[in-house]
Amino acid sequence: MRVIGIDPGLRKMGWGIVQTDGVRLRHIANGTLTSKGDTLAIRLLTLFDGLREIFAEHTPDAAAVEQTFVNKDGAGTLKLGQARGIAMLVPAQAGLLVGEYAPNTVKKTVVGVGHADKRQVEHMVQMQLPGAQINGPDAADALGIALCHAFHLRSARTLDMALKQASA
Amino acid sequence: MRVIGIDPGLRKMGWGIVQTDGVRLRHIANGTLTSKGDTLAIRLLTLFDGLREIFAEHTPDAAAVEQTFVNKDGAGTLKLGQARGIAMLVPAQAGLLVGEYAPNTVKKTVVGVGHADKRQVEHMVQMQLPGAQINGPDAADALGIALCHAFHLRSARTLDMALKQASA
Repeated sequence: MRVIGIDPGLRKMGWGIVQTDGVRLRHIANGTLTSKGDTLAIRLLTLFDGLREIFAEHTPDAAAVEQTFVNKDGAGTLKLGQARGIAMLVPAQAGLLVGEYAPNTVKKTVVGVGHADKRQVEHMVQMQLPGAQINGPDAADALGIALCHAFHLRSARTLDMALKQASA
Repeated sequence: MRVIGIDPGLRKMGWGIVQTDGVRLRHIANGTLTSKGDTLAIRLLTLFDGLREIFAEHTPDAAAVEQTFVNKDGAGTLKLGQARGIAMLVPAQAGLLVGEYAPNTVKKTVVGVGHADKRQVEHMVQMQLPGAQINGPDAADALGIALCHAFHLRSARTLDMALKQASA
């Protein structure tokens, strides 16, 4: 199963894809989309087109998007929201359910503590995906989200199998 | 020239289309898209698909989206932002520049004062588009945005023509 994680942002949108076969995890690809254009609409379109290309090339089976941190800067929240709308739309168009994880949940799942700093997350992502060339901090965050979703999907499947065995 | 106005919202998205030929204005269509689905991603997808259908049916030549009011409710701003991302994306995909107008600019253009209440806007929209059946308050707002954009485009063209004549 291929899992994509997306770290939404209007200027830069990180993405990372991992493959999970039962217990094994493998890195597939990662990168950062940079929005281009003079207007907000065009910038959103470049992010949409970029994400669509990534989905066409790597055909992920599951997707997760980071739950955006809402702060007091209303204008910033609005910008982020607009980019996040695109990040949610593309997997939905591909027929995928979209997982959503708060940054602290990602950190807790990947590092073990909810208040790990960014470098720790990057370090643990690199440890779990040996040999992966990580293209910047947004891509590292996105791989963290993908790992977090892969772990949660695995736990859900394991639980499901255990329940089926118990009732058999 | 066909001008679409969009009043973005995650639950309900108003839209309205007017035709402008020089000085005459004519109503084409209006309505409200309601997002459906259990998840945010699916709701955004239904808005995207709905807007795409409207663009395919009515092929507008120009588009404008209301500038969202940013308030202290961060979660609300984020929701609105996500819907607004979709409202900006669809016209950009159709190759249109997307005008953005603050609510007060729409009111000032359509009613003459920046702090008109919603019923006044609806009344003036109805006056300018006699015979139009307006499908609810969100559709009325969207028609107001379309009218505002049509007026601004007309002024810009008039100015452009005057400048060309002056320099001829």
